[in-house]
Amino acid sequence: MLIVQKYGGTSVANPERIQNAAARVAEYWEKNDSVVVVVSAMSGVTDGLIKMAHSLIPSPNRREMDVLLATGEQTTIALMALALHARGIPATSLTGAQAGIKTDRAHSRAKIKNISPTKIRECLSQGHVVIVAGFQGETDDRMITTLGRGGSDLSAIALAAALKADLCQIYTDVDGVFTADPRLVPNAIKLAEISYDEMLELASLGAKVMQSRSIEFAKKFEVVFEVRSSMNNKPGTIVKEETKSMEDVIIRGISMDKNQAKLTLSRVPDKPGSAANVFKTLGGASISVDMIIQNNSPETAKSATDISFTVDKPNLKRAHDVLLGIKGSIGFAGLAEDDQIAKISIVGVGMKSHSGVAALMFGALADAGINIIMISTSEIKISVIVELEKADEALRALHAAFFPVHRNTNP
Amino acid sequence: MLIVQKYGGTSVANPERIQNAAARVAEYWEKNDSVVVVVSAMSGVTDGLIKMAHSLIPSPNRREMDVLLATGEQTTIALMALALHARGIPATSLTGAQAGIKTDRAHSRAKIKNISPTKIRECLSQGHVVIVAGFQGETDDRMITTLGRGGSDLSAIALAAALKADLCQIYTDVDGVFTADPRLVPNAIKLAEISYDEMLELASLGAKVMQSRSIEFAKKFEVVFEVRSSMNNKPGTIVKEETKSMEDVIIRGISMDKNQAKLTLSRVPDKPGSAANVFKTLGGASISVDMIIQNNSPETAKSATDISFTVDKPNLKRAHDVLLGIKGSIGFAGLAEDDQIAKISIVGVGMKSHSGVAALMFGALADAGINIIMISTSEIKISVIVELEKADEALRALHAAFFPVHRNTNP
Repeated sequence: MLIVQKYGGTSVANPERIQNAAARVAEYWEKNDSVVVVVSAMSGVTDGLIKMAHSLIPSPNRREMDVLLATGEQTTIALMALALHARGIPATSLTGAQAGIKTDRAHSRAKIKNISPTKIRECLSQGHVVIVAGFQGETDDRMITTLGRGGSDLSAIALAAALKADLCQIYTDVDGVFTADPRLVPNAIKLAEISYDEMLELASLGAKVMQSRSIEFAKKFEVVFEVRSSMNNKPGTIVKEETKSMEDVIIRGISMDKNQAKLTLSRVPDKPGSAANVFKTLGGASISVDMIIQNNSPETAKSATDISFTVDKPNLKRAHDVLLGIKGSIGFAGLAEDDQIAKISIVGVGMKSHSGVAALMFGALADAGINIIMISTSEIKISVIVELEKADEALRALHAAFFPVHRNTNP
Repeated sequence: MLIVQKYGGTSVANPERIQNAAARVAEYWEKNDSVVVVVSAMSGVTDGLIKMAHSLIPSPNRREMDVLLATGEQTTIALMALALHARGIPATSLTGAQAGIKTDRAHSRAKIKNISPTKIRECLSQGHVVIVAGFQGETDDRMITTLGRGGSDLSAIALAAALKADLCQIYTDVDGVFTADPRLVPNAIKLAEISYDEMLELASLGAKVMQSRSIEFAKKFEVVFEVRSSMNNKPGTIVKEETKSMEDVIIRGISMDKNQAKLTLSRVPDKPGSAANVFKTLGGASISVDMIIQNNSPETAKSATDISFTVDKPNLKRAHDVLLGIKGSIGFAGLAEDDQIAKISIVGVGMKSHSGVAALMFGALADAGINIIMISTSEIKISVIVELEKADEALRALHAAFFPVHRNTNP
């Protein structure tokens, strides 16, 4: 069996953790599996390098930052190879470039163009464990690139696709994907499996297990992978294409994002192009907008409407300033803001074929005395904005409604 | 003008020192010179990586050590590029591999096979300062290699040769090459110039400025280089092929090596192959022998001889054990050792054409009441072994004899 394993920064944070990861690799190698190991930089290393760069120049050049940051993973691959050698296991380290990971030229956020795993295959055929530096690749003219946030997960999944691996394991510091954040909901349940789409919604909704791009890549190339902990031997969560049986589960999980703020433009003249102008202006200032609600209430003048939307909290002040700048040209009456909100979302492919999910959600919140400020839906998720101070309570109320205690993950 | 500058580990030890080095690069760049900068790892970094590797395995694999250690220089090139950017100077960093430095496969002590500086030339033609990681290269199949001790000097000199540079500057933490170690001989004089051969003798005799292999490479490819300090603006010492005028200077410098120990085999049977056996045995145990003296004294029996030689002090015990192991087969009478010795050498191409140098040397030592234990000569150097406790005194006595105070470097 050919297995790709990825170990994140906390799983290789020091020589002792690297030895633990090597012990796990050894378990598979000793069962005659072929193992490709993808590693991140030891945690803290990347931040230290960034700090050093910023001590020299406020906005460091991206090409040079890639040269600098790529040393982090390169250090880990060599140490991991040595830790395997110490166990008598033949192992060879490869940088992203040596492993054949070719990217475009977008330094610091490069996209993988293709992978030519000749060297990896050669080493595997000699019985070696191959350790590949995650997060990095090179351009056609051999410039070092990095893949941006979550890049090591992407390296692992792309390698699993290129090598047609039988198994791809993402080792991290959590046990898997849960029905809700276990720190906030003590009886949250670890999911045995989840579909790419559900995982994507959870990722984009604030669950911090994985970045969306890695999941999208896995979905596109049909790479089944497992998210599991490097600290214990518990099975994790399998992420794969949705199956018929998955739809029997109405909702897969509940996520919360406290990093949102709401802006409301009141009495925006109801003429073509008004809303477009607002969001074009925000886009031009690189401010991402999440939920958008426009509601023509009969109480407001027929010729005007209110528009509410949410942005990431750190962008609130800038969004406010940008909008005031176009107040004259658009002609709205007022601009209100609220950063004391949170977004809570329920996600599940089963929603598509089950009615009444929204009713159950809103009912559970009402029973808990929690007011809903905004609502937004997609085919497989429903998001609501609630008051920040009621957010944890809302999360627990929803979890109790959809995942009653002492039941399995199929409510 | 095309200049290659090399900055060693102490010259780039922290962001502030890197900024100082960048300021110096800037001086040349602003005069419209093309500059290629070769850098070492920040001092301490390499030792830290080695320590981490040894915490995992006692004898780390050389290939993996090369992957690990190469990160040190890669970190410095990126930081140096950023420090130049901060001064508004366009700069591009290249790893040894990207710079086209191809080596053989002898990991941790690789030899440079050839350099294809296409990428360097391309960057220079765009007006960029090019920063190259010293100490490293790659094999034809893209495995990372390192060049061993003194490797960054070698990178700089090899690049100067490949680029046909007009000037090669080796920046270090000393002001240049002196007539003797200035810490021991306060009135030692900095040399304006020195020949490759003299520099080689000084290097092999314990002067720590540069490794022999870099000087040999410079001699072979006729690269003229300057050794100078990165801490001040004083001109350093030019190292070049000897010229007629150099021979007017009888001796160039005096070096001392306190890391030697002497072994004497007494009454070795005077038959063919005895000496060969001794040194073959030591060679087989990887023990290098420096000075060798064999003297058939009329006082010893006609059929036997004494053989004395020196080894590096850390090898003394091992040499002793190895020799005792062949005592029976060779049949010597006794084995004496002495680690309380030092070697002092005078070096100069002028010696070749001047008689009386040995007489002046031995006379100066006699006048100072210092006994000579062994003597060894080559065309351009004379070495003597003296008692360790008299070594500093001997060095100063010789310096006073060959470089009288208030004279320039031409005695």
